Amino acid sequence: MSEKSHRYCVIMCGGIGSRFWPYSRTDLPKQFIDFFGTGRTLLQMSYDRILSVVPKENILILTNSIYAPLVKEQLPDISDSQILLEPARRNTAPCIAWAAYHIAALDPEASMVVTPSDHLITNEKEFEKSITRGLEFVETRDALLTLGINPTRPETGYGYIQIGAECEPGILKVKTFTEKPNLELAKVFLDTGEFFWNSGIFLWKTSAIINAFHEYCPDVVTIFDAGLEIFGTQDEAAYIERNFPSCMNISIDFAVMEHASNVYVECVSFGWTDLGTWSALYDNSPKNKDANVTQNCNVLSYNSNGNIFAIRGEKLVVVSGLNDYIIADAGDVLLVCPKSEEQRIKQMVNDSKLNFGDKYL
Amino acid sequence: MSEKSHRYCVIMCGGIGSRFWPYSRTDLPKQFIDFFGTGRTLLQMSYDRILSVVPKENILILTNSIYAPLVKEQLPDISDSQILLEPARRNTAPCIAWAAYHIAALDPEASMVVTPSDHLITNEKEFEKSITRGLEFVETRDALLTLGINPTRPETGYGYIQIGAECEPGILKVKTFTEKPNLELAKVFLDTGEFFWNSGIFLWKTSAIINAFHEYCPDVVTIFDAGLEIFGTQDEAAYIERNFPSCMNISIDFAVMEHASNVYVECVSFGWTDLGTWSALYDNSPKNKDANVTQNCNVLSYNSNGNIFAIRGEKLVVVSGLNDYIIADAGDVLLVCPKSEEQRIKQMVNDSKLNFGDKYL
Repeated sequence: MSEKSHRYCVIMCGGIGSRFWPYSRTDLPKQFIDFFGTGRTLLQMSYDRILSVVPKENILILTNSIYAPLVKEQLPDISDSQILLEPARRNTAPCIAWAAYHIAALDPEASMVVTPSDHLITNEKEFEKSITRGLEFVETRDALLTLGINPTRPETGYGYIQIGAECEPGILKVKTFTEKPNLELAKVFLDTGEFFWNSGIFLWKTSAIINAFHEYCPDVVTIFDAGLEIFGTQDEAAYIERNFPSCMNISIDFAVMEHASNVYVECVSFGWTDLGTWSALYDNSPKNKDANVTQNCNVLSYNSNGNIFAIRGEKLVVVSGLNDYIIADAGDVLLVCPKSEEQRIKQMVNDSKLNFGDKYL
Repeated sequence: MSEKSHRYCVIMCGGIGSRFWPYSRTDLPKQFIDFFGTGRTLLQMSYDRILSVVPKENILILTNSIYAPLVKEQLPDISDSQILLEPARRNTAPCIAWAAYHIAALDPEASMVVTPSDHLITNEKEFEKSITRGLEFVETRDALLTLGINPTRPETGYGYIQIGAECEPGILKVKTFTEKPNLELAKVFLDTGEFFWNSGIFLWKTSAIINAFHEYCPDVVTIFDAGLEIFGTQDEAAYIERNFPSCMNISIDFAVMEHASNVYVECVSFGWTDLGTWSALYDNSPKNKDANVTQNCNVLSYNSNGNIFAIRGEKLVVVSGLNDYIIADAGDVLLVCPKSEEQRIKQMVNDSKLNFGDKYL
């Protein structure tokens, strides 16, 4: 078993959170927002949670260059060398590959946790146990491990993992990954008991993921192999700045996980939610007596139920006769949309861009 | 017939427009807003419209002290001596009485028009003719004249005037004033052809209205009679400052019009609307292809019809599945309320005061 000092964590926080537009904006995406009014943003909560598993100095923040000031402000304990700044958005595979090469250069024995920064996890003790257990598993073999969540409803917004043979108690071989299913299929998945939600939290040794890239999607790591000697040196940032933009734009699932033969799932239950949708946020937030959820704002409501109010600033919101809506306001953009139509938001963002350029993104 | 130089106009603009809250706020009531995006506020439109009837220097602005800067900014042609600043809100009777005493001191022969500043009048030529005709009527007799609007629908938001015998073509004796009726009664009023909407625009000689105050509500003018010699002098403002707050709080209708025997109505039709309600504003505003009305804002709407958007600032509003609502935003307050429930707004303002003090008024 590896020492704790060989354990690293990469927190990814470069996304723009467009599904929460306009509450989440390009200049302040959702991971940088204190969604639950706890005084900690989603990024800060992700950082806090991993601190008990991984030494502070081994936590890396992977983000887009434009968010460097936000990261430094929200995580003042992190040193500049722990922040990896992508000069361009290239989906998850290239940035995870970079992080793996970076960590491997610092510590050839390293294992790593890769985690998004915008999930809600309610049972931190259980999270700590699950991560530790998973690290122990990957540290002793050439395995790619993903955390699978026991599904509680036929959710159509998540990817699913079909489980195969049990390898160790609670850790099983992955049979297939399945993209977001329709409702009918999701119900079947739930009934069979063979499917778990894909959390997008991954654990592996750096050597294992680098090997997997070479085997299943070598194009992603060409530029990293070409610059092997620069990782961990002061030239790394300039090298990445120059070469990263030419990386393939591809997700880690599509590049590696769906193809590799050594993929395992650890079945966990630490109160996980991908806060990917307004409805998920609504479901996971405390509600007032009218079943309304309020984010950072004062609300006077009349004959209004089941709404979610997400308003930046000290704003008073007064509503009457509104049920099951999203009311989101970020200063210069106001959105009023039924929760059931939240899949339209992507189109709205596009229409806004078409009509008004980047102004309201 | 009096010379034009004896004609005065008093534009009242001290109201806070709470029925348009939060678009209209204590710090910027509706009369100071460019409601139709024409580049002129309601107050400026009221001023422009009276200019052809009354000499510029005979136009007085009656407002609350706190709005002096707004009046000066919006009407730069007006001199300070033309602005009468009420130190307290005492409804219409005391401020009209003050204006009458003020004008009488400047010109004992004066006739005057009293007009609110927040009405919409679409036919300015007809307005000019009607006002001139009315002034000619009151200048030759001891009469109190109000302008009555031929009703086009059983509006429950207006006061009505029942007409009596015709005195001159288009000018009739007033039989009764009636407060806002319920819908059933309003329909009866409409059917009889005997009722006109009360516009709240009054015409009279200053001597006639001062006589009427003495006869029907002398308490209102006690403080003005006690200081007769100060009107038109530099001591007037200080005298008003000291004594005005002790005036009765009463409307001109209740103090005089409903009791006096020499009240007449001139039946006019110059495209008048009391912009007293959101629905009235909606009805009188240009609509886009989805029958939405937008005030000063960019709107992207999906499956949404019949709404009115009144938003201060360069804001983008995105709505989906919303029909016949008021969406009003003034920076720190957002209101979303069905048009049919706009009578609740008063309660909302009260609730806001109860919960948050004066902050959002």
